[in-house]
Amino acid sequence: MKIKIGQNILSKYISIVQKGISSKTTLPILSGILVEAYENKLQLTGTDLELGIETKLDCEVIEEGKIVITSRIFGDIIKKLPNDEVIITTDDDNNIHISCSNSEFNIQGHSAEEYPELPYIDNESSFDIPKDLLKNMIRQTVFATAVEETRPILTGALLEIKNNDLALVALDGYRLALKKSKADCEDLKVVIPSKTLNEVSRILDEEDDNVNIKFTTNHILFDLGDTIINSRLLEGQFLNYKDIIREEYTSKVTVKTNNIKQSIERASLLAREGRNNLVKFEIKDNKMTITSNSEIGNVHEELDIELEGEDITIAFNSKYILDGLKVIDSDIINMNFISNVNPCIIKPVEDENYTYLVLPVRLAEVN
Amino acid sequence: MKIKIGQNILSKYISIVQKGISSKTTLPILSGILVEAYENKLQLTGTDLELGIETKLDCEVIEEGKIVITSRIFGDIIKKLPNDEVIITTDDDNNIHISCSNSEFNIQGHSAEEYPELPYIDNESSFDIPKDLLKNMIRQTVFATAVEETRPILTGALLEIKNNDLALVALDGYRLALKKSKADCEDLKVVIPSKTLNEVSRILDEEDDNVNIKFTTNHILFDLGDTIINSRLLEGQFLNYKDIIREEYTSKVTVKTNNIKQSIERASLLAREGRNNLVKFEIKDNKMTITSNSEIGNVHEELDIELEGEDITIAFNSKYILDGLKVIDSDIINMNFISNVNPCIIKPVEDENYTYLVLPVRLAEVN
Repeated sequence: MKIKIGQNILSKYISIVQKGISSKTTLPILSGILVEAYENKLQLTGTDLELGIETKLDCEVIEEGKIVITSRIFGDIIKKLPNDEVIITTDDDNNIHISCSNSEFNIQGHSAEEYPELPYIDNESSFDIPKDLLKNMIRQTVFATAVEETRPILTGALLEIKNNDLALVALDGYRLALKKSKADCEDLKVVIPSKTLNEVSRILDEEDDNVNIKFTTNHILFDLGDTIINSRLLEGQFLNYKDIIREEYTSKVTVKTNNIKQSIERASLLAREGRNNLVKFEIKDNKMTITSNSEIGNVHEELDIELEGEDITIAFNSKYILDGLKVIDSDIINMNFISNVNPCIIKPVEDENYTYLVLPVRLAEVN
Repeated sequence: MKIKIGQNILSKYISIVQKGISSKTTLPILSGILVEAYENKLQLTGTDLELGIETKLDCEVIEEGKIVITSRIFGDIIKKLPNDEVIITTDDDNNIHISCSNSEFNIQGHSAEEYPELPYIDNESSFDIPKDLLKNMIRQTVFATAVEETRPILTGALLEIKNNDLALVALDGYRLALKKSKADCEDLKVVIPSKTLNEVSRILDEEDDNVNIKFTTNHILFDLGDTIINSRLLEGQFLNYKDIIREEYTSKVTVKTNNIKQSIERASLLAREGRNNLVKFEIKDNKMTITSNSEIGNVHEELDIELEGEDITIAFNSKYILDGLKVIDSDIINMNFISNVNPCIIKPVEDENYTYLVLPVRLAEVN
């Protein structure tokens, strides 16, 4: 293999495929990047077998070929080279020679034959979605996936398409985040690992080009043009989230997102110190009082709100409320309550496609 | 005590004194900030007994008094409050009430009587130095202090004044950094802990006001105006650094700082992987070749230089060379060599006040 390519562009694409490579792999070949040069294209591949990233870029190919190069050292070398033409040459013994300006590196590569095949995607169904919309859908939901592996299916987010209605849903038993959109695709239900969604989001740039999302029985594939991310799907039955989200309420609060967020952040300063994260909301007469007590002191916050319906006193783990408020872009939110043992449903006033639901904490002194 | 003060300014000054507070203190009272209000000034103090920071700011004092407030929670609360007037009230039982806009906090403080006295500085001698010059002197030397405590005196930097010539020197047995300046002060020699110098540097803003530096037998005091930093001095005999820096040379190299820095950084990519950090310099015919070998490969860099004197081949720990190159602002440096077992002396062409010296590594194959 012999190629000639700009340092800047190569460095950029290496950092993309590096996101697919795990530092804790047990299979040494997977700590490498598969580098393939053919037809004036350079293709780079990184995978941990769960998630794979493949990216293609234009390149002067003097001699076609392929090799596996240790990801970290390859990335470090290319990043540190001057912004000039890089020439990479390999021989039959997998010796790699990298030269650029007055720098020359010789490192040992590995045979591309040892590299595993990425899964073949037979493209059963697919749809297009704008990059920025997908990025936002991920941002507003993925944080609510379960961290613990006790119920592995909840470490992923459900992507459901029904009659061209698209929903991305994450829940962990304490809270639920749901973002809706549209998708021109046949009905389906898949559960995508949260790690995949996070990597996709990191790789998506802010352009409003489309991403093509393809599905097979066991895999999902995000086609961003130059870069293709493929991932295994999680197996198992996701909870029926629609049963959890009830439309009725007895109290409906309208409040400025930023005001309530900052008040809860302050209240949680002491809650956090006390290690219970508990904040209490008392909603009454167009006022919301947020209080928190811990060994080291107490805090009392007052907020102007609009209340429709009954007064209510209810307590939450401040972290779960804040996680939702942080991803809401709307200036004003609605919070719907049924009772102090039913979930609170938070909806941005300017985005009917987003729903965030939090379970309350039962308090002995709350009645 | 009862005071009224702007949130922004209070938060800023809390973060200054917090730099004097250790998170690992064994004396619980030292995890607090001493807050004293008198004569329309608020004085905040933080100390770990080695280093103390005292800062004063204007404040509306409604009732004079003093109290100790846990540093982290005090800082967190004030930082999260809206940018409005903060009212802090304390009672005889050290209960603290903080209110601002619609937020109210009650936390428990500690009696100011328990707080240790900061050392009395009797101001034997002192001099003024511009803030930015002091900051730069610290930046260019303090990194060369010893990290290990085997020779405690070397964990500090020597500040020496002789006939109004000021020198700040740090060395750790592998390299030495020296920055000279002028000081209108009587002759003295003190060794300042590196931690103190780092904190002083962090607190110094970029203004070119003067800092007044005062000395007693055991303490140094940096008076920045609003803020005073005091520190214990290290006891013991510092090495006679002047004997180490020799003026003569057999080879003198002139090279662009950035070029050699980047070449060594690249060479050290493989050296680092091999865990020996060794880079070899071959200087000959106005060329410098920098090479490095490790298990994973080798690198070869070529640089244009000007050479005055003899050819030389010499090896270094790349980290020690790079540390010095990183703090040199001059575009061009001189490197003076006597032999491959004598130190290399690096001097910026545009700053005769700075000297950096590195010991070579003896190589079996170097002759």
